[in-house]
Amino acid sequence: MSGGVPVPGILKRAGELVSPAIAAALGGLGSELREPAEYHFQSPGKGTRPALAILSAEAAGAPSETGVPGAVAIELIHNFSLIHDDIIDNDAERRHRPTVWAKFGIGVGVVAGDALHNLAYEALLRDPTPPRVKAAKHLTKAVSAMIAGQSMDMAFEEKSLVTLDECLAMEQGKTGALLSYATSVGAILAEADDSVVGGLSEFGAQVGVAFQAVDDLLGIWGDPERTGKPAGADLRERKKSVPVVIALNSATPAADELAELYSHPEWDAGGVDAARVLVEAGGGREGTKLLARTHYDLAVSALDSLAAHPEVVDEVIEELRLLADFIVGRDF
Amino acid sequence: MSGGVPVPGILKRAGELVSPAIAAALGGLGSELREPAEYHFQSPGKGTRPALAILSAEAAGAPSETGVPGAVAIELIHNFSLIHDDIIDNDAERRHRPTVWAKFGIGVGVVAGDALHNLAYEALLRDPTPPRVKAAKHLTKAVSAMIAGQSMDMAFEEKSLVTLDECLAMEQGKTGALLSYATSVGAILAEADDSVVGGLSEFGAQVGVAFQAVDDLLGIWGDPERTGKPAGADLRERKKSVPVVIALNSATPAADELAELYSHPEWDAGGVDAARVLVEAGGGREGTKLLARTHYDLAVSALDSLAAHPEVVDEVIEELRLLADFIVGRDF
Repeated sequence: MSGGVPVPGILKRAGELVSPAIAAALGGLGSELREPAEYHFQSPGKGTRPALAILSAEAAGAPSETGVPGAVAIELIHNFSLIHDDIIDNDAERRHRPTVWAKFGIGVGVVAGDALHNLAYEALLRDPTPPRVKAAKHLTKAVSAMIAGQSMDMAFEEKSLVTLDECLAMEQGKTGALLSYATSVGAILAEADDSVVGGLSEFGAQVGVAFQAVDDLLGIWGDPERTGKPAGADLRERKKSVPVVIALNSATPAADELAELYSHPEWDAGGVDAARVLVEAGGGREGTKLLARTHYDLAVSALDSLAAHPEVVDEVIEELRLLADFIVGRDF
Repeated sequence: MSGGVPVPGILKRAGELVSPAIAAALGGLGSELREPAEYHFQSPGKGTRPALAILSAEAAGAPSETGVPGAVAIELIHNFSLIHDDIIDNDAERRHRPTVWAKFGIGVGVVAGDALHNLAYEALLRDPTPPRVKAAKHLTKAVSAMIAGQSMDMAFEEKSLVTLDECLAMEQGKTGALLSYATSVGAILAEADDSVVGGLSEFGAQVGVAFQAVDDLLGIWGDPERTGKPAGADLRERKKSVPVVIALNSATPAADELAELYSHPEWDAGGVDAARVLVEAGGGREGTKLLARTHYDLAVSALDSLAAHPEVVDEVIEELRLLADFIVGRDF
């Protein structure tokens, strides 16, 4: 999702810090669980969440190492959610390989996800210093919000009418809560002032909404080569993503036609293309770009306010901005 | 599983203390998750785990209320594991009703279990006093052991040779770890001496093994009216439970015949009865009864040692013994 934006150096630097700690955490699992968990991690993502956690510690003036337990916890939670989401969405491929459930069975997928979920709390509470306990407490809130977002997303499939507010609340939970946690957990571990933690958390929440909006655009107009998913994958799955919801609520002729099309259980070969045209005609594409831009700007404003804080390291704020550019992709 | 053993009064008393707290925790879920979660809890179990947690606090001289956050956490974790186990085992009925996944779909079952898992940590860390943090830290270990046990159980299905040691390690994880947590978390919250926490934890671990052994006997010889499952359910599912593993390792002619029978993918109408006879002929029934008795006696010994401790309330120790009798059922 990173368009032509250069890959920030922090991703490699954070990976070198965090990967051994993740490997150590997985190494503590029994052999039955280690195999599917290690299989899943063999094809890693970009590591943006742990990188945000490391920068979050550095932004508060702490050494990078301070952010590591938070980075490990967030990466474990993120991957627990991927493994379970693939079961929920019946997705048999991720990153061009069979997903855990597709390779090992649904039961193993369920249990492997559970193991990573629990391991995240184990990583933070093994040595329960006050900042780590605070990080664990914040994690309970972030994960609950993520799970609530996931369950709203599932419920949308059954609902004919979803408002943009409901859709944004869902995405704030499903994507925003964990990104907000990633951008603040390092500062929590660094025992930064609550205003710093709050500002970083706000930054992450806004990055989350902007990222998700761009991801929703890619789910309809993205190049399959780049997204690793079939063209128009979200339309095919009848997702009520932001562009679709904007179009459905647009009170245009396209809205009615799209609602009609979405209510058909089976589409012929032209269904995805027809839906794509209707979402655009209903203003879904422009509206989502505007939304992405607005929340990206809010994210940058949150960073700008932080830069004025005496406790905050300005060079790291710049690194956070570059990483946000990379995450969001700036394709708008 | 309680045979003719009278129902201990603590179950009702603990239920009255803990149910409102569980209801409050579930009430914080979004409506999409509250529905399946409340559906699951509408048909409650006996509540033995929260009762153990309350007695554990009282045994350490604390008021009953001290044990409540631990009781809530354990009940949430236990029910998360039931909801996920039903998906893993493809069980469509529990307590004579459709299971969560059977009623709401696999996706909802996965997410509802995840929500309860996370809510348990939220319940303990909402107000992170040192004893609650210690309780949360112990919970990470107990849940990891439970998940490891579950994954071993699944792996046994693929293994032709399972030793009794492996089988007991699996059951200690799958059942014992959470019971051991239940019998000790109240004392942790009461800030009892480590020797008291350790003794109570040992008591729970032994009760867990004895209970599981009796449960394994019921899975083969139990009355369907009483167990709520079809006769010989564990044999039908080719479970490598303790009686089966004892028989398979018995070096008798029955062992070979049972191994042969277990390797057949399909059984005719007489398969379950034939397997039941072979398990008994291979010493599986007597061996499991002996094992249940041995671990029950070890549980009682652990309690007897605790009674000598000056910090421990002797009347509560007697209540713990009665509750252990009820849990294990004493059908041996």
